[in-house]
Formats: sequence, C-alpha cells, structure tokens
Amino acid sequence: MTERRPIECVCVYCGSSVGSNSSYSVAARLLGGELVKRGISLVYGGGSVGLMGSLAEAVNSDGGSVLGIIPYSLEPEEISGKTPGQVVVTSGMHERKTQMAARADAFIALPGGLGTLEELFEIATWRQLGHHEKPIGILNVNGFFNPLLKFLDNTVAEGFVSAKTRANFIVDDDASELIEKLCVAYLNMQPNEL
Amino acid sequence: MTERRPIECVCVYCGSSVGSNSSYSVAARLLGGELVKRGISLVYGGGSVGLMGSLAEAVNSDGGSVLGIIPYSLEPEEISGKTPGQVVVTSGMHERKTQMAARADAFIALPGGLGTLEELFEIATWRQLGHHEKPIGILNVNGFFNPLLKFLDNTVAEGFVSAKTRANFIVDDDASELIEKLCVAYLNMQPNEL
Ligand SMILES: [Mg+2]
Repeated sequence: MTERRPIECVCVYCGSSVGSNSSYSVAARLLGGELVKRGISLVYGGGSVGLMGSLAEAVNSDGGSVLGIIPYSLEPEEISGKTPGQVVVTSGMHERKTQMAARADAFIALPGGLGTLEELFEIATWRQLGHHEKPIGILNVNGFFNPLLKFLDNTVAEGFVSAKTRANFIVDDDASELIEKLCVAYLNMQPNEL
Repeated sequence: MTERRPIECVCVYCGSSVGSNSSYSVAARLLGGELVKRGISLVYGGGSVGLMGSLAEAVNSDGGSVLGIIPYSLEPEEISGKTPGQVVVTSGMHERKTQMAARADAFIALPGGLGTLEELFEIATWRQLGHHEKPIGILNVNGFFNPLLKFLDNTVAEGFVSAKTRANFIVDDDASELIEKLCVAYLNMQPNEL
C-alpha cells in the first residue's frame, strides 16, 4: 500500500446568502485563510455572492488557488459579479456536483440553505455507498448545525443510520481544528476513486 | 389556464432499514393503504427491504400500482427479494432520482437515513430553483423529523432560507391528513414540467 499524499484541495459547500449576522462571513473568510496557510486549494460552487463569495475572495486575496464550478443554467441567478480565480462551466447541476467532488480530497460544509444540505447529504451518501473515501467536515459556526447533528443522532437511535456512518461527519467550530482533523482522517483512509 | 388534474402518482423517499421499532413499518403500510384508497400510484426506489419494502408491499397487496426505480449499480445491495409491482432499472443514481421525480405529482419523505435526506433536499432544491411545482410532504412518524424541522427553522432565523421556501415542506404525523394537504397544495400550484 502506497502512502497517501496530504490534502491538496478542499471542496466547500455553503450559502449563497451571507446570513443574518456577520459571524458567518467572518468564519468563511477565516476558513479561506486557513486553507491558504496550508497550501490547500479551494473548489466551490462559483460566484461572488453570499458565503460562497466571502470564502472565495478570502482565498484569492491571500494568494490561494480558487476554482468555481458553475452550471450553465444557474449563471444568471448565482453569478453577480466576477468569480475570483478560475471558473469551469458545466452542462447541469449534477455534472457540477460530480466535478466538485472528483477534484477535492475532502469536503467542508459551512452554514447554508437547502442547496448546501443537499450537497452535504449527497457526498455523505456517496461515501456510505463506497463511491469515495474522502473525509467530510462540518464547520459548526455559532452552533448553526446543532439541531441537524441532534437529528443525525436521532437517525442512529431510531435505527436508520449506523453509528459508523454517523461518525463520517467530522464536526468542529474552529476552522483550523477542523482542517487538522480532516487531514488526519484523510491520511488514515484507503484511497478510492470517486 | 386549464385546471390541473388531481394527484395521480406520489414518489415516496424512505429508509432501506425498518427502524428500531415497529411504528415505522406500521406507518409505511398505512401510507400505502391511504394511497390505494385514493387511486394514487406509488413510485419509489425499488426493492423489498426496509420501509421501502413495507410500503411497496402494502400498496401492491391492496391492489394499487407500484413502480420501483432501481439503479443498475445498487441491484446487489438494495434488492433482496422481489420488488412488488413493476421495475425500471436505470444507468445510475442520478438518472434514478430524475425519473422518480418526473413520474410523480408529489413527494413524501418517511423516516430514513442519509439517502432519504439527500432525496428530500434535492427535490426541495429543485422546487426552490423552479424546476418543478409539485408539493413536498414529510410524514413525521413519532416526531422523527422534529430536530430536522427545528434546524430548518434555524436556517430561516439565520438568514439562509426564506420563509417562503421553508413553507414548501408540508408536515403531518397522519398519512391521510398529509395526502389531503398535498392534494390541496397541488391543485393550487401552477404546473411546471420537471
Ligand atoms: Mg443530490
């Protein structure tokens, strides 16, 4: 077995809104800075609005590498202003998510809406099905995800999710700590192509 | 504007486990009976295991119409025993979900695991993006979804989901009541092709 190289690229799922207080965009920018500090590139859903924009601009202005992946159909709605860094335009939503997942070594969910939740649960389902062996982190800013984490505990208690699958979600409220946990998890996993 | 016909087909997302107590499979069978009583056909993810199996078997044995849509890749894992009714095998997971959504007039989530959550949030995201105008119900058996509903309220309070989008989730703990609510919502919506 060859040793796995460290994490080189993280895919971040997050809101196309900034949220109702500034702590969310502060957290997004801090996460961006922590990625750049470690030489980890960012892949995300593209655009310059919401937390997606805050994060991408932070990585770009700190000299990091940013790749935004945008479906052709969403361009008018999600792209207000220029996406920092490089852009790939895909034919649809599914191709977008597939490309985001394939390019990343790990995933982080920040606060967001239905799209963010869908992306988080899709990548977690793909992990459960053995389609990839890449760690999944949740940056629990302000305890935003607490009720969701409680719900996930409930799915285990009620027999719908195994404790092993539940443990695939790595949670921290600090960006630096979360990245460190993901790096350790990544090196301990068997590589599997997405 | 022509009047919309009533709901003819419901897509149900639910666990491939039965859960830790019998109330879940009882609820799945009751839901199946209520669909048949109204002449509404079922489309689901196929197979005879878990709540998916309980539901499909109930519809089938009551003389209702069942269509299971199974991706080729999942056949060995999810199909233990025969799928009641008719089966369509798709090339992949994405094609499966697209076909399930296109054939249904409304959606219901029962308790389940990560796959169920992914399906629920995907169809809700597609609704938010205007890809369809079909109502989305949650059958809240035993309060299973309470922490998730609390989390959704939190996404609104924190500015990531609009109150209008939050209201797209129609919730009831009674199958008959839930179907009635979905039928009313369906007739009040503008039809939009998926
Ligand atoms: Mg999905």
